[in-house]
Amino acid sequence: MKRLVIVGVGLIGGSCALALKAAGAVGEVVGVGRTRGNLDDARSRGIVERAYTLDDRWTDELREADVVLVATPVAQIAPMLATIAAHSGPRTVVTDAGSTKQDVVAAAAKAFGERAERFVPAHPIAGTEHSGAAAAFPTLFRDRTTILTPGAHTAPDAVATIRTLWETCGARVSILDPAQHDRIFAAVSHLPHVLAFALVAELAARPDAADVFAHAASGFRDFTRIAGSSPEMWRDIALANRAALSDALRDYRTMLDRMAQAIERGDGVALEELFAQASDARRRWQAATTAPKPVDR
Amino acid sequence: MKRLVIVGVGLIGGSCALALKAAGAVGEVVGVGRTRGNLDDARSRGIVERAYTLDDRWTDELREADVVLVATPVAQIAPMLATIAAHSGPRTVVTDAGSTKQDVVAAAAKAFGERAERFVPAHPIAGTEHSGAAAAFPTLFRDRTTILTPGAHTAPDAVATIRTLWETCGARVSILDPAQHDRIFAAVSHLPHVLAFALVAELAARPDAADVFAHAASGFRDFTRIAGSSPEMWRDIALANRAALSDALRDYRTMLDRMAQAIERGDGVALEELFAQASDARRRWQAATTAPKPVDR
Repeated sequence: MKRLVIVGVGLIGGSCALALKAAGAVGEVVGVGRTRGNLDDARSRGIVERAYTLDDRWTDELREADVVLVATPVAQIAPMLATIAAHSGPRTVVTDAGSTKQDVVAAAAKAFGERAERFVPAHPIAGTEHSGAAAAFPTLFRDRTTILTPGAHTAPDAVATIRTLWETCGARVSILDPAQHDRIFAAVSHLPHVLAFALVAELAARPDAADVFAHAASGFRDFTRIAGSSPEMWRDIALANRAALSDALRDYRTMLDRMAQAIERGDGVALEELFAQASDARRRWQAATTAPKPVDR
Repeated sequence: MKRLVIVGVGLIGGSCALALKAAGAVGEVVGVGRTRGNLDDARSRGIVERAYTLDDRWTDELREADVVLVATPVAQIAPMLATIAAHSGPRTVVTDAGSTKQDVVAAAAKAFGERAERFVPAHPIAGTEHSGAAAAFPTLFRDRTTILTPGAHTAPDAVATIRTLWETCGARVSILDPAQHDRIFAAVSHLPHVLAFALVAELAARPDAADVFAHAASGFRDFTRIAGSSPEMWRDIALANRAALSDALRDYRTMLDRMAQAIERGDGVALEELFAQASDARRRWQAATTAPKPVDR
């Protein structure tokens, strides 16, 4: 890979560049972003060789790029793909790092038309509580998973290029259907975020909020840790994965209603059975998994 | 304190005995429990001097006891108080360690009648993922909170005795009204447990459960940690605090419905506002608190 263009040089894009450079796998990295301050961080940390804000003439860099990685927040991926499609070269492989995939696949189909075979949708499952180029580090993706969701029309050589890119960063690569991806991440990530946001928002709105928070202990701390996440980022993810998340919310509320009704009618047998199904599944998952350390997105 | 009788020599009762002994604050400790094996553990670890199963003639130990601590699971507190009331001496102070308080106060009123002034309801906020006398250790309560919920009728010297007991164990003691206690712990502990149980139970029941769990990462791990808790213990707590927990569930579902509706109608402004209220409150709480390490109950 001679030239990699990264649009959105934050924690994800910056860490990817650092990992590829550490492996000697890329000639030059060009960074494109919204704010000059972050791009200056990226340049001073050796993440990028050249940096452009969106107001600069950055699209000339696209024609000779081998790979363009769009690592912006989810809501900015679609407009960015339209711009990239208008300027990228015929052999350029374009990919993204968004937490949702059906919306990105649809945006890419619209932006690239027949050339959508050069677009490989991807979701690296990694993150920390920090953001920006200043927070990037080359081992962020080591032993983590990156999911690719290519379609039947996606060019095999483009998929191979992006697979190699993430494997070079230390990630395991697995392939999912975009709808399956969105259903799974609605369940294990997007839904838990909404549930945690809802608990803290509800408690914070109570007249006795100060008393309530004063008595919260470690169970509460772990349960609500993800409620400290970025409201903007999670608004975008929730809306981008609206259909699958709405389905997951509906199924969740059905189960919660069953538990609430068992509590109201004092049905200890039903309640213990449901709690035990959860407890058994959670213990099996914990035993089967060596859970990775950084937070997921 | 010459004689302390502990009914239920598990993690809580056992750790209390070890802490009081380490401080030289108790002459002898008598243990009462369901299973001989656990009582043998308690004796061999020096937690108790004498041990009785519930089938033994243990009630003769009550008359000369200074303090009787009922540290059984929540559902066994009420029947135990009836037995203790029938055999304890006129100066004996009786207390408990249950996670709910209105039900215990009502059970004590029924069991003790006019002598309920010698009963001091208490909730030590401490625990680990382990249970039984084998898991007990003397510093479990250090820098943790124990809440007392005495009534206007409770004898001040009885409250002072139990306050001193827990302070000797290293705990901070605070006083709450029983209804306030149950409302607060419904919100910060019992509700989060039900929410986490509901998520894992729902995911485990799906046809694609294996795929879903295979992609769960660290956000899911922390959010669902409390879903690995004991189904029996949490069934009992949920039912013991049924009224306050049902109220908390109703308020929670109202907030969750607001978020679900905002997602369905694609209302990013409303969604971001609710997420931001949660995120701000969570960050303020995290900054204000040095969260204790062991799990709460």
